[in-house]
Parts: sequence; C-alpha cells; structure tokens
Amino acid sequence: MKRRDFVKKIGLGGLATGGLLGAAPSHAAKRVNWKMVTTWPPNFPIFQDGVERFAKDVRAMSGGKMSIHTFAAGELIPAMQSFDAVSQGTVEMGHGAAYYWAGKIPAAQFFTAVPFGMNAQGMNAWLTSGGGLELWHEVYAPHGLIAFPMGNTGVQMGGWFRKKINALADLKGIKMRIPGLGGKVIAKAGVNPVLLAGGEIYTALERGTIDATEWVGPYHDMRLGLHRAAKYYYYPGWQEPGPTLELSINLKAWNELPRDLQLIVQTAAAASNAWMGAEFQARNIESLRSLRDDKKIEILPFPDDVLRGLRGFTQETLDELAEKDALFKKVYNAYRKFSAGNEDWNAISEVAYARTFTL
Amino acid sequence: MKRRDFVKKIGLGGLATGGLLGAAPSHAAKRVNWKMVTTWPPNFPIFQDGVERFAKDVRAMSGGKMSIHTFAAGELIPAMQSFDAVSQGTVEMGHGAAYYWAGKIPAAQFFTAVPFGMNAQGMNAWLTSGGGLELWHEVYAPHGLIAFPMGNTGVQMGGWFRKKINALADLKGIKMRIPGLGGKVIAKAGVNPVLLAGGEIYTALERGTIDATEWVGPYHDMRLGLHRAAKYYYYPGWQEPGPTLELSINLKAWNELPRDLQLIVQTAAAASNAWMGAEFQARNIESLRSLRDDKKIEILPFPDDVLRGLRGFTQETLDELAEKDALFKKVYNAYRKFSAGNEDWNAISEVAYARTFTL
Repeated sequence: MKRRDFVKKIGLGGLATGGLLGAAPSHAAKRVNWKMVTTWPPNFPIFQDGVERFAKDVRAMSGGKMSIHTFAAGELIPAMQSFDAVSQGTVEMGHGAAYYWAGKIPAAQFFTAVPFGMNAQGMNAWLTSGGGLELWHEVYAPHGLIAFPMGNTGVQMGGWFRKKINALADLKGIKMRIPGLGGKVIAKAGVNPVLLAGGEIYTALERGTIDATEWVGPYHDMRLGLHRAAKYYYYPGWQEPGPTLELSINLKAWNELPRDLQLIVQTAAAASNAWMGAEFQARNIESLRSLRDDKKIEILPFPDDVLRGLRGFTQETLDELAEKDALFKKVYNAYRKFSAGNEDWNAISEVAYARTFTL
Repeated sequence: MKRRDFVKKIGLGGLATGGLLGAAPSHAAKRVNWKMVTTWPPNFPIFQDGVERFAKDVRAMSGGKMSIHTFAAGELIPAMQSFDAVSQGTVEMGHGAAYYWAGKIPAAQFFTAVPFGMNAQGMNAWLTSGGGLELWHEVYAPHGLIAFPMGNTGVQMGGWFRKKINALADLKGIKMRIPGLGGKVIAKAGVNPVLLAGGEIYTALERGTIDATEWVGPYHDMRLGLHRAAKYYYYPGWQEPGPTLELSINLKAWNELPRDLQLIVQTAAAASNAWMGAEFQARNIESLRSLRDDKKIEILPFPDDVLRGLRGFTQETLDELAEKDALFKKVYNAYRKFSAGNEDWNAISEVAYARTFTL
C-alpha cells in the first residue's frame, strides 16, 4: 500500500520534464549523507570515474549539504546484489546497467541496450524527450526504485575471435564470453555463450578455454590486454549499440529528498551521462589509433551474412520474450515505435551525412 | 594587463576536467543576480526553451542564491550585439553560437560547426574530452569571455529549393538564404548567398525573391511554413552537421563567482546541452513523420556530384582562411587532428552499425 502511495506521490509524468511534484517542499538545512554502491571494480576507468565525479559534483553543488559515499563492487555489497540493496534501502543509490536485472525484470533490458537497437543518440532522445524515462520509472516503481540515465559507452566492438569468421556457419560450436540478450541471440547461431567476470577473460582467451569474447571497445579491451590474446577484432558491436548506464535511487529516499537536492542529483547525473559518452568516444579514438599500428591483429567487419543472421535471431528472441511477459511487450512496443522514427530521421541526417565522407 | 591576469587565474587547462582554480574559495552567502541575453527570438522553441530551463535549474539548484534573468534577442540588446555586451560586462551571460562572431574571431567558427566537419557526438567528444574546450577558452580569453557548449541541433537539413537540383551546375545563379561558411562555400558553386532574418524567410521563398533557403531541420522548418513555400527538401545539411550552441560568460564575473555556483552553472549548461540535443532529435522525428505524409513536397538527397563539389570548395575555403589568420590555423589543425581520429573510429562503430539496418 505504502509503495503505491509513493508511486502516486512522485508524479511520474512530470519527472522527465523537470517537475518534481513529490519532493520535500523547501530548501532544508538538514545534511544528507547517502551511500552509493556500483557494479564496477574499484578505479574501473570511465565507468567508476563517472560515478566518483557525480558524487563530487553533488557535494560541491550542494555546498556540502549532500554527501554521497561511493563504494565500488564488493567494497560494501557484491555487484549483482546492488539492485536489492537499493530497492530495500540498505543503501540509497546504485550505479550499473538496467539489463543486469533482466532475471527479475526482463523489460529492464530496453533501458540499457538490446541487440540491433538504438545507439546512444537514440537512447538519449528516447529517454529524455520520447517518453522512455517515464516508462522506466513505471517499470521500476513497483520495486521501490527510480532511475536516471548516467553514462553511455557508445557503439561497442563485436569482440575478439581466435579464428576468422567468414560466414554464419563459422560461429557454430564456438565458445564465447557474451552475456545477456546478445548471448541468447548468438546461441541461435550455434555459439556456446559463457559468463566470465572481467578479471578472468584474458587468461581464458589466451589459453583457448574460450574461442572469443566481447568486452567494451578499443580503450577498455586494450587495458584488459585482449589484443595480445586473440588476432581478429570484429565490428560493429551489434549486441550493444549504445548501452545506457543507470543511476538507481531508493524511491522512498528520493521522495524525502528536498527539491533542490533532487534537481542537483538529476542534473549531475545528466552531466555525468554526457561526460562518460564523450570520454568513451575520445579514449576509443586514441586506442584505435594504437591498434591500427599493431601488425599482430586484424580489425575486420563481420560478414554481411553473419549480421543478417544475427539480426533475424534478434527478432525471434525479442518476440519470444514479448510472448512470455506483458511488461516486456509494453516496453518493446514503445521502444519499437520510437526507434522506427529515429531510424527514419537518422537515414536522412546522421547516416546520409556520414556517407559524404565516402564520396 | 588585467585581462592577461584573468587568463592566468582561471587555469585554462583545468577547467575542462572540473578544476576551478580561479574561483572564489568559499560557499559565499551573497546573492548573485545576473542578466543573460540571447540571440533567439522570444519563445523560439528548444533554443530559447533550453536557456530558460538552464536559468531555472541554476536558481533551483543554488537554493535561490543565484538568479539569472534571461532576455530574448532585442528585449534588452539586439541579437548580434550580445558578444560585445557580455565581453564588456554590460550583462554577465549570453547564449548564441560562436560562429556568429566570425567577423571578429574567424577561429570561433570551429566551436559551432564547419561544413563537412564533426557531428554532435564528435563535437561533444572534442570539446569535453579532446582538448577543444581548452582551445575555446584560449581563443575567447583575450575578449574577456569564457564559454561552454550548451545545445546542439544535430545534423541539419540541406534546405528547401524551388527547383530540383540534378547536378552541381544547377546551383549556378541560385539565390539562397545561407549564412556563414556555408554561404562562402556554396558561392564557389555560383550560388548567390543572401542573409535574411528568420521572420523574412517564408515570404521571400514563397514569392520567389529567393530560390532556396536552409534553416534548421524538419521541426523548425515546418514551424516557419517552409514546406508550403518550396517543393524540394534536400539532405543532408553538409553546411551544419551538428552546430554547438554556446553559453558565454564575462570572464571577470565568472572569476568572481563562488566555486559552488561555478560548478552549478557548468553542470546546468552540460545538462541543457544534452537536453537540447535530445529535444531536437525527438521533435525532428515527429515532424519528419508529418512531412513524409505531405504529397506536395519531395524529400531528396543532394546528388553525389553536388556533395563532392561542395566538399572540395569547403577544403579550399578553410585553407584560404587558415592562410590569412594564424589563430584560425591553430584551431583548424587541432580540430582536424581530432576529427580524423573521430572519423576512423566512427567508421567501425556508428557508421558500420548504421549499415546493418540496410542489410
């Protein structure tokens, strides 16, 4: 009962446009001390950096009225328990990615990335100005949570392969580290998708325990040393074309936060969202430059046949999930409607413009 | 002399990474009341909206400590005098686009957009994480100004034409409303570029006083009624592939602003930058949908021949300007270096990914 009251109180429709109906009314003098857990290892570049930056910004902008004490994965709570910790109010805030909670909420995946879905620009437009954030809030409210986009890796890379992939059939029997929906989709092509934590990937690939892995993009992949463990680096990252990272907040704590601090949190998250996107782009540019000089590797596009096949399997996978889960179906439909328009506009703006560089 | 002291004081290198070395040290209790002039008509959608939103955010986040009174173009100062007004401290802040000041500072154009230059994602990466903002500050400091990116229209449209363009030669003798570098470039193809204020464009095009015009994108173009004044709507907007709008601030006023308020201003600008980008994308998607249903118009790509020609003329134009102005050359070189890497990374990320939609 109480939970439902909160949902009403926050005035879901208004949040995305800056209305903060449920907030405490005045500029309270009381100091706020919050805890924030993340799903990232300590010092994980850009990801954890963006979180620290956000916490620092909130503290400074509030003139010290609000302090957020950040904890990397495992420092207070294991990474994959952060959803429950924030939901139950053990801590007030979390940072990760909504698709990590697909087991509890299949629909949450649309708020991060789905294979052959929208890129960062599309996700930001949908979430900010296309009704996406309101849907996200609706999906999270029954779990006592509210979330905001905070970070985006941009288009990822398709991954590192020990053997060359010439056709869809070459994927059959391959053991690949690839989590989530990407793993479900590529399994339909005969890949055996496995889960491995970041720290285990290099050794597994180098020793041939796995045949392939996806990770993030040139910058993070090089830091993990993957270019020394496999020869073929494939693009594009069809499985994660622009994953949005999430700031999750306990809904009760959020509703009790004074209005000015709510706005400080939301604005700092938006700034951090943009900062992380810019950092990923700039660092990937630099790392790609080094990789281009590395004669031991080959940077290759997936064959059209492979991409066409994976796109078909993606359609099948999403349709199957929509059959099983009404909330998934609802979000899928809204996402599809926006992304169809986004694709149409991109075709005559971004895509047509990028084409001029090839003339 | 004094001016040079300010340049030193603000610690240019540190600003982009959040260092605010020159700020007043403590969380001052003194109320700050600033004036902000823009180059936009009152209620100009998204452009002026983003400014109002920014001012509202700053006031709310600062708990009322900082108020920014906004004035649309002409309400206090004519649009094109806002640079001087902010530079001289008549008002503390302005909003517009750096390329409006090309007459005073040719190099400023790189901080908005140049023909066949970087799109919004590239500009954000360069300015935030690639050294662009530091250069911008260096270019503006001698004018007593500091600036931050605040808004981006995304790739614009190429414009409305009363006659079909089948080849580069068809541009010869056309009278087109197209300002700035785009106008300089297209003049080399024999176009007669003219300047017209927004309010005059519809009538001029409808009556045939001009043969063509560029404006913004589907959303703003439809609001101006341009789809009722010309039949052919060309893409892509080679002349403005992702113009960054600017928040300009009087440098003395900025240096005297307490540190927490500086951070509030910077963060609100970053959030507003992202919000405007998302709004342009979402509103253009909707407007394009209506235009697609309009049987009286045709939405067409510029022929390859035209784009190839304009790209060559752009190269010539930029090289000529670099010959004449050392500061232009310096910024041009930095811009070119970053955008070459950006193009290389985009080719295997955004561009390769967008291609999967055509398979």
